[in-house]
Amino acid sequence: MKLFSSVNDVTDVKALVAQALAEKNDPFAHQHLGKNKTISLVFLNPSLRTRMSTQKAAMNLGMNVIVLNIDKEGWALELRDNVIMNGTTVEHIREAAAVMGEYSDIIGVRSFPGLTDREEDYSESIFNKFVEFCKVPVISLESATRHPLQSLADLVTIEELKTKARPKVVLTWAPHIKALPQAVPNSFVEWMCQADVDFVITHPEGYALSEQFTNGATITHNQDEALKDADFIYVKNWSAYEPYGAVTGGNEDWMLTNTKLDVLAPEAKVMHCLPVRRDLELSSEILDGPRSIVVHEAGNRVWAAQAVLKQMLEAL
Amino acid sequence: MKLFSSVNDVTDVKALVAQALAEKNDPFAHQHLGKNKTISLVFLNPSLRTRMSTQKAAMNLGMNVIVLNIDKEGWALELRDNVIMNGTTVEHIREAAAVMGEYSDIIGVRSFPGLTDREEDYSESIFNKFVEFCKVPVISLESATRHPLQSLADLVTIEELKTKARPKVVLTWAPHIKALPQAVPNSFVEWMCQADVDFVITHPEGYALSEQFTNGATITHNQDEALKDADFIYVKNWSAYEPYGAVTGGNEDWMLTNTKLDVLAPEAKVMHCLPVRRDLELSSEILDGPRSIVVHEAGNRVWAAQAVLKQMLEAL
Amino acid sequence: MKLFSSVNDVTDVKALVAQALAEKNDPFAHQHLGKNKTISLVFLNPSLRTRMSTQKAAMNLGMNVIVLNIDKEGWALELRDNVIMNGTTVEHIREAAAVMGEYSDIIGVRSFPGLTDREEDYSESIFNKFVEFCKVPVISLESATRHPLQSLADLVTIEELKTKARPKVVLTWAPHIKALPQAVPNSFVEWMCQADVDFVITHPEGYALSEQFTNGATITHNQDEALKDADFIYVKNWSAYEPYGAVTGGNEDWMLTNTKLDVLAPEAKVMHCLPVRRDLELSSEILDGPRSIVVHEAGNRVWAAQAVLKQMLEAL
Repeated sequence: MKLFSSVNDVTDVKALVAQALAEKNDPFAHQHLGKNKTISLVFLNPSLRTRMSTQKAAMNLGMNVIVLNIDKEGWALELRDNVIMNGTTVEHIREAAAVMGEYSDIIGVRSFPGLTDREEDYSESIFNKFVEFCKVPVISLESATRHPLQSLADLVTIEELKTKARPKVVLTWAPHIKALPQAVPNSFVEWMCQADVDFVITHPEGYALSEQFTNGATITHNQDEALKDADFIYVKNWSAYEPYGAVTGGNEDWMLTNTKLDVLAPEAKVMHCLPVRRDLELSSEILDGPRSIVVHEAGNRVWAAQAVLKQMLEAL
Repeated sequence: MKLFSSVNDVTDVKALVAQALAEKNDPFAHQHLGKNKTISLVFLNPSLRTRMSTQKAAMNLGMNVIVLNIDKEGWALELRDNVIMNGTTVEHIREAAAVMGEYSDIIGVRSFPGLTDREEDYSESIFNKFVEFCKVPVISLESATRHPLQSLADLVTIEELKTKARPKVVLTWAPHIKALPQAVPNSFVEWMCQADVDFVITHPEGYALSEQFTNGATITHNQDEALKDADFIYVKNWSAYEPYGAVTGGNEDWMLTNTKLDVLAPEAKVMHCLPVRRDLELSSEILDGPRSIVVHEAGNRVWAAQAVLKQMLEAL
Repeated sequence: MKLFSSVNDVTDVKALVAQALAEKNDPFAHQHLGKNKTISLVFLNPSLRTRMSTQKAAMNLGMNVIVLNIDKEGWALELRDNVIMNGTTVEHIREAAAVMGEYSDIIGVRSFPGLTDREEDYSESIFNKFVEFCKVPVISLESATRHPLQSLADLVTIEELKTKARPKVVLTWAPHIKALPQAVPNSFVEWMCQADVDFVITHPEGYALSEQFTNGATITHNQDEALKDADFIYVKNWSAYEPYGAVTGGNEDWMLTNTKLDVLAPEAKVMHCLPVRRDLELSSEILDGPRSIVVHEAGNRVWAAQAVLKQMLEAL
């Protein structure tokens, strides 16, 4: 694998999930692959799970790891082309990415969307420029519109914990006070559409995701109907795709509670990519109760990253 | 050892000191213990000695190290329970600690006190929540009320440099312009009370430490009397315990000088945990002269951390 | 080697260049040298290339690496002597450097000039205090007046890519909007004067470098004349040495373009230490065209650092 930016970069999703579970079962079996190989994890935005799990996965594979919070430790990057750099940006992404490629066998990049210019965000221009200019394999640590390592870990978690061959998986919008990216839900939809699950998306009116991702998926504005008999409920807030980045108030009753689940989906396991705002996005009673698998899910981030990095190392 | 937060977590203080000196003598003897083990060093506050010495100790033991300045690189943490997270905090410590535990065999945590709410600080709620929720062994990198790795290194230093079986050790308050935590003096008292030393505490009126720590120790407001014939003098500023966090001006004459020591304790070695404000807390003439052992003491931080981590690794 | 701060610390420049190319050819041949050795890379200022390339070089040599952005993760350092530390600085460089030395076999330090007090900057007081107080070998990661790892990489690049025994190398000033240090051009001059090249410096009036560095070098204010038939053109902005740190507007026509090079030096390879401001310091058409070797040059930073670290490790 030379690029891991979406499910479309994966030849065999099932095999990748199986590889992740194999890594979990025997974490240090492939340390020879990473010996004397360097991965640079480059962050333009904050990170906890992605940073730690990918660093750990790389170390499990025997790699050397360079972590660079370029927004804080490095130089202000110019991301636009055809500008005279006489402002506040100090280095162009063309040089920055190319130079990082010189020091790295693999690069991981995190870059959030601005949520103001939809065309810009959905063109994935920052991430794509890194890929174009660094000239080494790139693994997305979350880009403007996707978070594939999260989605792979989610699928690994479902595969690991499902109790029937074809579980019902529901993605439900949840309330928030800030405008959040659509990357996690976009990605989750993309991966679920390729998985052996019954998949339903539910959100209030005004929060439709891009059809580029939801095309063909079942969507309803009736949360109760969607949750009915769910095996896995994926909770996530996102801001509107149209008008882009909008957050309208209300919809507080979309937050999951035990009362709701006791009736609709008593056996459901509740997932969230984290970080989660307690009692705004998701109730504490669920997070602290037996239905929540959010910590287990976060733990699986290591094995998702390790399976991807293993494939990348094998292709070097 | 599953927890290192205070001297009370140590079964045999003498043996731990001896182990630290053994590690110093042969730093790479136990690298097999740490192979494929990951320690995450999580900082909610700045650090130089603790960060570097603990990272080095872990590497000496063959461990993989993840350093996370979570206040800068990660998300703003919510530390209180039972709040609707509709403000500026992005992730609750319950999830953050639990997730870090998924990626770590051992976690080190640094968290300073706020110095405004004594009950809150002395409950060690932040540190204790990390311990409770991360579910892996935790080593304190300084918490609200204690700095046990510092105190262990201090005791190692005294043990290493003492010229009599039972040296006289004096903890003296020193002037400062800011309100500093009581963590270092609390911890030093706690460890000295378990060591084979004659221990005296001296400070101006108004700077009594919590009786929880000083109970049974000799305390005097007469610095000259305390310093008399001291073998080791531990210099440290702290703010008042009552009223909590207060700093009253004056007491500049509490700063140690050679003139003072030439008369009172000509053979004394002078210690400080660092960082130290020159010519405010402690005179340059002492810091630059033969009495100071502050750099040697800082160097011993590695061996203190290494002895503790060794015990933790053996108990995994 | 115990110190790498300028070309004057190198016994045999040719041999060091050859060693760098040997490391490039066989990057992992000397891993035994660094085993159980720790390098601390201490940054008082931002870094991308120097940070990543030196960390990678050290890892190639089998070393353990501690990266400390002390300006962000540590304490505010006091750099002056004989001051009562009752202001905003928390730790004196005397203690900070000494303590870092306790934890390190080698220390790398980056510290930029203030560009307001020339005597202070050119005394290299910060860098020299690190060297004096840390008591272990020190490698400059760029100091107030020099950037020797950059210059060594530059010389390695020229040696690697030259097509004649004695190429013509031109250092040309380029426009900028901010006051930049003289460290890179000072250093480049210093190294070129010891290399087997025809060396010319060109800059507008008012931008003469210190004679301490340019003594004996050919200097002209006529850029066209200087560029004539150049084999390598080193592009760099710097602020004035006299009046110190001044930036006068104008001189925009000093920016290199293909039109200029097509006439004057059609075969020239164009170098820059990076970061570079596109279409202000250097035209995009050159950076994106076949004349530019800036990324290749940045890649050679690894081998420059590795050759120096190898010599330091051998002398431990």
